[in-house]
Amino acid sequence: FSLTVQAQTDISKLPRITQELVNPPMLPKHDQVSTGQKVVQVRMVIEEKKMIIDDLGTEVWAFAYNGSVPGPMIVAHQGDYIELTLVNKSKNSMVHNIDFHASTGALGGGALTDIAPGEEVVLRFKATKSGVFVYHCAPGGIMIPWHVIHGMSGAITVLPKEGLSDGKGNKLTYDRAYYIGEQDYYIPKDENGNYKKYATPAAGMADELEVMKTLTPTHIVFNGKVGALTGKNALKAKVGETVLILHAQANRDTRPHLIGGHGDYVWERGSFANAPKVDLETWFIAGGSAGAALYTFKQPGIYAYVNHNLIEAVLKGATAHFDVEGKWNDDLMTQVVKPRPIQQ
Amino acid sequence: FSLTVQAQTDISKLPRITQELVNPPMLPKHDQVSTGQKVVQVRMVIEEKKMIIDDLGTEVWAFAYNGSVPGPMIVAHQGDYIELTLVNKSKNSMVHNIDFHASTGALGGGALTDIAPGEEVVLRFKATKSGVFVYHCAPGGIMIPWHVIHGMSGAITVLPKEGLSDGKGNKLTYDRAYYIGEQDYYIPKDENGNYKKYATPAAGMADELEVMKTLTPTHIVFNGKVGALTGKNALKAKVGETVLILHAQANRDTRPHLIGGHGDYVWERGSFANAPKVDLETWFIAGGSAGAALYTFKQPGIYAYVNHNLIEAVLKGATAHFDVEGKWNDDLMTQVVKPRPIQQ
Amino acid sequence: FSLTVQAQTDISKLPRITQELVNPPMLPKHDQVSTGQKVVQVRMVIEEKKMIIDDLGTEVWAFAYNGSVPGPMIVAHQGDYIELTLVNKSKNSMVHNIDFHASTGALGGGALTDIAPGEEVVLRFKATKSGVFVYHCAPGGIMIPWHVIHGMSGAITVLPKEGLSDGKGNKLTYDRAYYIGEQDYYIPKDENGNYKKYATPAAGMADELEVMKTLTPTHIVFNGKVGALTGKNALKAKVGETVLILHAQANRDTRPHLIGGHGDYVWERGSFANAPKVDLETWFIAGGSAGAALYTFKQPGIYAYVNHNLIEAVLKGATAHFDVEGKWNDDLMTQVVKPRPIQQ
Ligand SMILES: [Cu+2]
Ligand SMILES: [Cu+2]
Ligand SMILES: [Cu+2]
Ligand SMILES: [Cu+2]
Ligand SMILES: [Cu+2]
Ligand SMILES: [Cu+2]
Ligand SMILES: [Mg+2]
Ligand SMILES: [Mg+2]
Ligand SMILES: [Mg+2]
Ligand SMILES: [Mg+2]
Ligand SMILES: [Mg+2]
Ligand SMILES: [Mg+2]
Ligand SMILES: [Mg+2]
Ligand SMILES: [Mg+2]
Ligand SMILES: [Mg+2]
Repeated sequence: FSLTVQAQTDISKLPRITQELVNPPMLPKHDQVSTGQKVVQVRMVIEEKKMIIDDLGTEVWAFAYNGSVPGPMIVAHQGDYIELTLVNKSKNSMVHNIDFHASTGALGGGALTDIAPGEEVVLRFKATKSGVFVYHCAPGGIMIPWHVIHGMSGAITVLPKEGLSDGKGNKLTYDRAYYIGEQDYYIPKDENGNYKKYATPAAGMADELEVMKTLTPTHIVFNGKVGALTGKNALKAKVGETVLILHAQANRDTRPHLIGGHGDYVWERGSFANAPKVDLETWFIAGGSAGAALYTFKQPGIYAYVNHNLIEAVLKGATAHFDVEGKWNDDLMTQVVKPRPIQQ
Repeated sequence: FSLTVQAQTDISKLPRITQELVNPPMLPKHDQVSTGQKVVQVRMVIEEKKMIIDDLGTEVWAFAYNGSVPGPMIVAHQGDYIELTLVNKSKNSMVHNIDFHASTGALGGGALTDIAPGEEVVLRFKATKSGVFVYHCAPGGIMIPWHVIHGMSGAITVLPKEGLSDGKGNKLTYDRAYYIGEQDYYIPKDENGNYKKYATPAAGMADELEVMKTLTPTHIVFNGKVGALTGKNALKAKVGETVLILHAQANRDTRPHLIGGHGDYVWERGSFANAPKVDLETWFIAGGSAGAALYTFKQPGIYAYVNHNLIEAVLKGATAHFDVEGKWNDDLMTQVVKPRPIQQ
Repeated sequence: FSLTVQAQTDISKLPRITQELVNPPMLPKHDQVSTGQKVVQVRMVIEEKKMIIDDLGTEVWAFAYNGSVPGPMIVAHQGDYIELTLVNKSKNSMVHNIDFHASTGALGGGALTDIAPGEEVVLRFKATKSGVFVYHCAPGGIMIPWHVIHGMSGAITVLPKEGLSDGKGNKLTYDRAYYIGEQDYYIPKDENGNYKKYATPAAGMADELEVMKTLTPTHIVFNGKVGALTGKNALKAKVGETVLILHAQANRDTRPHLIGGHGDYVWERGSFANAPKVDLETWFIAGGSAGAALYTFKQPGIYAYVNHNLIEAVLKGATAHFDVEGKWNDDLMTQVVKPRPIQQ
């Protein structure tokens, strides 16, 4: 069959770039159109650390790729190689690894990357498919969901070599790109109904498995904690700018909606090889995947970007804000008559 | 950028029509193909009222646009302006507003339409995108999900100027159109397991928020209550007729299925700018959106139209009926042998 | 209208084949391309029997078409007639029937196939739409979800006459096909937290309805029980082979993912009349439907195939394995550096 006769790339001859990973919701510096096949070198350090996830001071032991929940976004182009050095800090307590949905074989790399605290490993894979893809820890058995619901996931964007397109021959570009990782947490409560805290990650495990079995998260948040992307942390844009919004959910379905805006172009399942859907009010990301939406802002103001199960958005935490500068367009919307006493 | 140089329509020169809103599952009188850009004037009166939602006499305080759950369907064409007078009855107890997923800016109009009991406001927006879109109350914070799960949502259909098409150059028309709003309720129980009743909407809020946090509705119904569209309330059609079914769910995912029929053409995310999917057994509406399906009935009889999580359909209430007249087609289905004792 | 003038096929002149149904995950012998319109004769015997569904010895009364959960896969081509003899074993205790999502009219056949223990019935329907479609028992009212969550569903694949295609004029063929039925169970617990066992199916009903109302399954499994398709029961394939994976879920949404692989071509809603999506990390099957994915294996090894709500995969049971033989391709993935102490 064809794979065996295909000439293998001489990877040692390819240019190598070191991609400096940055904290979500930002993406690392990247080209929208490829300048040629390359090896993208990245380094991620796994950190187990306590994180406060809401205004009540609720704690979670975050298992955090590069210290953030979600882990950092990697960006490459289709056909590139990703070469990851994965480091498990010595002070950590658990074996971790990484499973890239963008990769092929060995459980997405999970079978080749188990590392104990104090170890590192180097994995290389070819990004054969374009799209935005989840990565997450998958150390086997019940450790898989348990690590993932401790925040241990992130995403990689594999752009088509020529950049994004509408599937009808027209290029699509963006002025800004933001990356939102949605996280479901399952925090046990004590007999008084207060969220429990644990001295070590392992101490919480038995309790947490019971909450997980209810399939009902206590928290559903964007970028690690309630309010990580609201108020003064709002995402910025300007009227007329086109913004790419990458949304990853490693475990549970979600339905993004931009209040007051739309998805002009939406890749719901995240693969850029499919023509995007257009003009969506709400889109749907299947648990265990990442999707992308492109929107050109037409009005200034604050936009909420939510998981439009409104209970999940407001009572569980899945809300972000966009703060958009520019000139109001009365043609699109006008308050014709201000609130006044009922007439007639 | 382009928006600012675009000539603005002189709205004062456009024809105005007053659309008489009707109760679901019906749509207001409308043209399938646009006769020209226009201003569609509508008036909706918000009513807070007790509603019985099941055969046990369970009560909910409905926050009802125009007195119905869901609120009435508005119909326009792409490029039209919608001019809504929204009225909050004097006898109501709460501030309400409206967020149109079809609109652009100001939280979908929510930021411009907060009205106290006894007030009215007039909002105008341009329907720039075609599709069927949810509208709902969004008065801020926990009030957003709390008002929505009290039935405070509806939908607007923005038809393409030339009407619907299959995305391959063929027009699609319908003989009838029905509008189904699916509603999830979260009714608290007392210590005996009986559903609680509250003298005022506010009295139930604390209890209801606790039920909402379980993400498990006690009721999931079509058009406000169990049985609103079954039995003598069944939706009518004839063999050979093509029926457009608009299905809105402002909060929670659903998966419509017509038992004994199909979705011949389905716009799952509701945007008519995308080619419809064809020949579906079941389709999927993301929470916070509305979708559309077109079916030409081929057999007479009773069809159940359900949310095909069958527990949600039968134990929670999400079932409607179609009652279809016409001549049975043995070619499509025949009972070759009636029930008889097992042979051989 | 057109239906009545359409010439009816003289079914008595068509060739008849008797399709020997086989146990899941296998498909009956079939042609990928039709050799001509035909009548496909099948016989299914309904069996009520106790089944162990996990390693704890948890029991369910399976209502099993042909003795398996899910019921057997039927395969036909678009335009064929399916003629089913449905048999309700004399030792059973309940009325059963069958509702084919692939059929048209009479509640999918449910209204024509109610049979008591000791009875049989023969139903014929025309497979007018291509795709993979669920069938299930639907004896009315609360019996519908209650029978379905006792395992009483299966699927039929209706291939296009010319076989599968990518929607761009290219044929798609498969070397192997596997059929996975995902089943949600709702097993009551006693006061000690142990799963209850019941002497008869009816004895469990009241308890089970209470668990069902939580919308939270205690088990979510592939092919009837935890581990039915893992370890020594893993699905086999070879590098270079193209495998068609048919996934049915009669009641509850699911999100299939092949760990270490992809969906090269995916029909998420199961209808082959739509062009497949390509290159998906995860896909989404709406509750009450069946979908299909095609993947050409590129690497050897064990692949887990999961419902990628990882809690559902690992804590509830929705995991299968593929065991793939062949030669490892270092170009796609390499462990560049084995785990070693952290450098620098
Ligand atoms: Cu880990
Ligand atoms: Cu995964
Ligand atoms: Cu309100
Ligand atoms: Cu909304
Ligand atoms: Cu049955
Ligand atoms: Cu069904
Ligand atoms: Mg791959
Ligand atoms: Mg391992
Ligand atoms: Mg993706
Ligand atoms: Mg807009
Ligand atoms: Mg407000
Ligand atoms: Mg819509
Ligand atoms: Mg049909
Ligand atoms: Mg019946
Ligand atoms: Mg299907």
